[in-house]
Amino acid sequence: MDATHDPKLRSFVESANGHPDFPLQNLPLGVFAPPGGRKRGGVAIGDKVLDLGAIAALLQGEAERAAEAASGEVLNPLFALGAGPRRALRAALSRLLAADSAQAAELRPHLYDIAACTLHLPARIGDYTDFYAGIHHATNAGKLFRPDSPLLPNYKHVPVAYHGRASTVRVSGSAVRRPMGQRKLPGEEGPSFGPCLRLDYEMEFGIWIGPGNDAPIPIGRAAEHIAGFCLLNDWSARDIQAWEAQPLGPFLAKNFQTSISPWVVTPEALAPFRIAQPARPAGDPKPLDYLWDAADQAGGALDLAVEVLLQTQQGGPFRLSIASTSQLYWTFAQMVAHHTVGGCALAPGDLFGSGTISAPSEDGYGALLELTYGGQKPVRLPNGEERRFLEDGDTVSFRARAARDGYAPIGFGECRGTVLPAA
Amino acid sequence: MDATHDPKLRSFVESANGHPDFPLQNLPLGVFAPPGGRKRGGVAIGDKVLDLGAIAALLQGEAERAAEAASGEVLNPLFALGAGPRRALRAALSRLLAADSAQAAELRPHLYDIAACTLHLPARIGDYTDFYAGIHHATNAGKLFRPDSPLLPNYKHVPVAYHGRASTVRVSGSAVRRPMGQRKLPGEEGPSFGPCLRLDYEMEFGIWIGPGNDAPIPIGRAAEHIAGFCLLNDWSARDIQAWEAQPLGPFLAKNFQTSISPWVVTPEALAPFRIAQPARPAGDPKPLDYLWDAADQAGGALDLAVEVLLQTQQGGPFRLSIASTSQLYWTFAQMVAHHTVGGCALAPGDLFGSGTISAPSEDGYGALLELTYGGQKPVRLPNGEERRFLEDGDTVSFRARAARDGYAPIGFGECRGTVLPAA
Repeated sequence: MDATHDPKLRSFVESANGHPDFPLQNLPLGVFAPPGGRKRGGVAIGDKVLDLGAIAALLQGEAERAAEAASGEVLNPLFALGAGPRRALRAALSRLLAADSAQAAELRPHLYDIAACTLHLPARIGDYTDFYAGIHHATNAGKLFRPDSPLLPNYKHVPVAYHGRASTVRVSGSAVRRPMGQRKLPGEEGPSFGPCLRLDYEMEFGIWIGPGNDAPIPIGRAAEHIAGFCLLNDWSARDIQAWEAQPLGPFLAKNFQTSISPWVVTPEALAPFRIAQPARPAGDPKPLDYLWDAADQAGGALDLAVEVLLQTQQGGPFRLSIASTSQLYWTFAQMVAHHTVGGCALAPGDLFGSGTISAPSEDGYGALLELTYGGQKPVRLPNGEERRFLEDGDTVSFRARAARDGYAPIGFGECRGTVLPAA
Repeated sequence: MDATHDPKLRSFVESANGHPDFPLQNLPLGVFAPPGGRKRGGVAIGDKVLDLGAIAALLQGEAERAAEAASGEVLNPLFALGAGPRRALRAALSRLLAADSAQAAELRPHLYDIAACTLHLPARIGDYTDFYAGIHHATNAGKLFRPDSPLLPNYKHVPVAYHGRASTVRVSGSAVRRPMGQRKLPGEEGPSFGPCLRLDYEMEFGIWIGPGNDAPIPIGRAAEHIAGFCLLNDWSARDIQAWEAQPLGPFLAKNFQTSISPWVVTPEALAPFRIAQPARPAGDPKPLDYLWDAADQAGGALDLAVEVLLQTQQGGPFRLSIASTSQLYWTFAQMVAHHTVGGCALAPGDLFGSGTISAPSEDGYGALLELTYGGQKPVRLPNGEERRFLEDGDTVSFRARAARDGYAPIGFGECRGTVLPAA
C-alpha cells in the first residue's frame, strides 16, 4: 500500500479526520477564491482548502513545480505536467498535512474555510466530449425508440461519443435556467417555440485530461493522459432533443448547461478503488486491438457508488437512484485511445463525460427519462409529490463515494444545480 | 456607397491594385509571423500584410483601440470589441493605405511579403459548431440513406447543427493525415480497423463570432455578433462516419481535422455583396418568430461564388465544383439566433461552419459524396484520372469570390490541404 492511502493517517486539520469526502487520503485539486481574493489552485482537506501557490516554497523538486503550476487561475498548467509531479505533490501534501506535521504552523495561514470561498471551474476547458458508455442507459433510452433493438449495431464495438459545448460547462452551484426552444408537441402538426417541457438530468462521471497528444495515444499509455475525475450533470431538454437531434445528434438540447463538481479527484487517490473491467456478457464481441489492453482490463475500471438526490420546494432531499461506475461498458483508457486514434488532439483541461451511468435495475437509473419510461410513469417521491420531468425550483445533486475494506472512504463533494424558470 | 467600397480606390501598395483577393476594398484581418518574428495581427493588402500593432500609434480613437487589440497572437480581443472599432479601423486603413496616403513612408517598414510570412489561425477558437444549412447537400446526402424522403421533417424548421472539435481546426496549408479508424466494410460481418477508405472534403463557409452573449441574441441583433467570414473544409471520413454516427452524430469521422482560410473577411468588406435571402419554395413553412426578421430576410444573405479545386500528383488543379453561398437555406443571423436561443454562450473567436454548400446541379456539388453518388459513380478528371474519394497526395483547395457591377471584386484567399498517407 502506498503510504498516502494508509487508513490510519490523520491530519492536523481536525475536520479532515472522518470527513466523508475529503480526508487526508483524498487530496483533490480545485480552484477557489477566498473572500475578496483572486482565483487560485488549492487542495481540499476536510472543510478547508489549502492555497497551493502560497505553500510551494515549502516543497522541493517536482512537488514544488506542481504546486507552482497550480498557483494560477486554472489548473491547466498542473494537468499538463502529468502524473510524476502530481504524485510528488500528493506525497508531499500527505506529509505536510499529517497530524504530526512539523509545518502545521506555516500552513495554517494558507488554509481557508471552503464554505467561505467561491469555488470555480478547475480548468479552462478547451473541448468537451460526451461519451455514451453507460450501457443500461443506452439500452433504456434506445428502448423508447426501438423496443426490439434498443442498442444499435455499433454500440459494443465503438465507444460512441459526440462533441459537447465547452463554453457552458459550469461549476456546481450554478443555477440552470430552463431553456426555451423548438419542440413538436404531441398531436401538433408543426413545431412551436416555448420553455422546455421535459427537462432532465443525466448522472455522469467526468474525466479531466492531463498531457495532450499530437499522435494517437495507445491504450497502454492512455491512463497517463488522465488528470482526474469529477461528477457531471449533462442537463437535457428531452422535447428539444427529440425534435432536433436527427441526423447530427443533440445540440440545443444539451448546450444550455453542463454542471460539474469542483474538485478533481486524482487517479492516485482512486487507486485503491480500481477494479477489473467487468467481463463482457457471453456473446459480446471482443473489442478491436486498439481498444484492448490486458492491464486496462485487469484494473482500469472504478467501483464508486454514484447517487442522485432531488430536493423540491416542498421537501427532500430524496434519493432518486444509486448506481456504480463499474456499469460503464468502456474503460476511461478505452475512451482516450478511441478519441485519439484518428489523430484528434487532446489538450490539458479537456473534459470527457462518461455517458449516463445507470444500474441494470430501476433503483439505479441515472435520468428521469429512464425512471419515468419517457415521462409515461411518474416517479412518486416520499412526500407524495410526483415527477415526470424536473420542475422549476427543483435542486438536483449528485454525490459519489469510494469505499473498500481496509481503506479510508473518500468522496467527490457535490455536483448541484437548481432549476430556474425560463426567462 | 461607403467610401471604402469606391471601386476607383487605389493603394500605394502596387500589388493591391487589381489583386483578385486583397485589393484596398477588402482589408481582411489575420495573424502572421514574419521570418524570425513573433505572431501578430495584420491586414492583407495585395501580396503584403501590414502589422497592425506596429502602426496603431498612427491611428486615433476607436481605430487605434482596434489596432492595439490586434497586436497580440490572436484576434479574439479585436473580435470582442465588435463592429464600431472594426469599422473605424477599416475606414482609417482605407485612407492610410490609399495611393495618395501621406503616411506611406511610415507604413512601409511594417509591410511584409505574405509569401515570406507564416500565417496562423486568426483566433483561439473556444468552441466550433458545424451547421447543415446547405439544403442541396442535405438533400443529396439524405438521398443516399432515404431515397424517398431525403430531408428529415425538422430540416425546414430547425437550423440543424452539431458541435465540432475546436482543437483540430488548422490553418490552410496544414497537411491532412488520412485517419485510421473503425469502419464496417461491405460484405463484412463486423467492423475492422484501418486507414479511412472514403476520405472526402466538404466545402463550407466559416463564420467568426465577435462579441459574446449571456442571454439569447434576438435575430435583429445577431449580425452585430459576427466578426467576419472565411472558407472551411470539413474533412470527412465517410466510412468511419457511416459506422459511428448513430445515434449521436459524427465524431471521429470529422474531428481529425478541419481546415480554414487564414483571412477574416469582415462584414463591412462584404456589405456590397449582401442579397435578400432567396424566397423559400412555395409550401415551405415560415420559420418560427425567433428565426424571422424582415431586415435579415431583405439583406442577410451573401452572394459569393465558392469553388473547389483538386490537384492530383498527376495534374491539375481541376475545378470540381462551383456554387454560391446564396444556396444556404438559413442566414448567418438565423444561425446565431438559433444557437443562443436556449441560453448557450458564444464567445469572441468561436467559429461556425455553414454546412456544405452545394448548388442544385451536379457542377455545384460541394463534396465527393455527392459528386460520386456515395462512391458509386467516379468523377472523371480532365487528365483522365478518376476519383471516388480522395487519394494520398491529392490537394484540395477552396476559393471564393465576391463580384458585383460597380464594385471592386474581392476574394478570400485559399483554404488548402494535401492528403498525407495514414501513419
